[in-house]
Amino acid sequence: MSDPSPMEIALSEAREAASRGEVPVGALVLAPDGSELARAGNAVEAAHDASGHAELIAMRAAAARLGSSRLTGCTLVATLEPCAMCAGACSHFRIARLIFGAYDPKGGAVQHGAALFRQPGCLHRPMVIGGVREQESAALLRDFFAVRRGSPAAPG
Amino acid sequence: MSDPSPMEIALSEAREAASRGEVPVGALVLAPDGSELARAGNAVEAAHDASGHAELIAMRAAAARLGSSRLTGCTLVATLEPCAMCAGACSHFRIARLIFGAYDPKGGAVQHGAALFRQPGCLHRPMVIGGVREQESAALLRDFFAVRRGSPAAPG
Repeated sequence: MSDPSPMEIALSEAREAASRGEVPVGALVLAPDGSELARAGNAVEAAHDASGHAELIAMRAAAARLGSSRLTGCTLVATLEPCAMCAGACSHFRIARLIFGAYDPKGGAVQHGAALFRQPGCLHRPMVIGGVREQESAALLRDFFAVRRGSPAAPG
Repeated sequence: MSDPSPMEIALSEAREAASRGEVPVGALVLAPDGSELARAGNAVEAAHDASGHAELIAMRAAAARLGSSRLTGCTLVATLEPCAMCAGACSHFRIARLIFGAYDPKGGAVQHGAALFRQPGCLHRPMVIGGVREQESAALLRDFFAVRRGSPAAPG
């Protein structure tokens, strides 16, 4: 068996987030040579931190590991199209490539909404590939919210 | 003498950031009753964290202090117009009021650029007051970058 793909790892982080009652989104950061620097799932509830999105946590951890605030040449892999906060952070961290799973017409800010990297003033735009294993990522989110809507007391 | 105003505290956080070699931006979060929950200056260099903007640090600290990921009814005071990352975080944290100093035509995402709170899909829009003690905040930034441009080795 080969090693799991980066998106498979991100999906497994998303599944673990759901099991903790967090919105199932996962992310990891790859170094320029393709090795993994950091992985994370959403941690909004556990940490009482509305900025505890998987993407931001993974980028912060990768930068801490490198001892540099710039993730030059690095790739962010996320199961969901990043929101404005996380897309803005991609620019600040100088992420070179962004690969994401499901599109997010409501909260996404890469292909939707503010489309941050298309703004004329955007100082750093990663290469973007969306829709990778889109169905699996979207199904995780759909199932998570269906359970919560049907049974508010359900843990996730 | 009366207590310093919230923007005076934010400006003093910005000055302290500059003395550490950080871009001089400061912020604080006020509870609904006007008491201070958290204050911060930029900490990008010290923490090797490109997301270490004063606004985001202050909101995370305020939420940790309240034990809630939502800062309902709270006010964010910042010396500079927030970027897309920090403006996005304002929505996630449910900040009720945003008061900022200098406008940032290049990096701001409230009155400029993506103008996040004006996006049709924005789920939470704080009330916004910009330009409070604008000149002092802008002067801090101008002086900081002038010194660095003139003498690249200067600490800040």
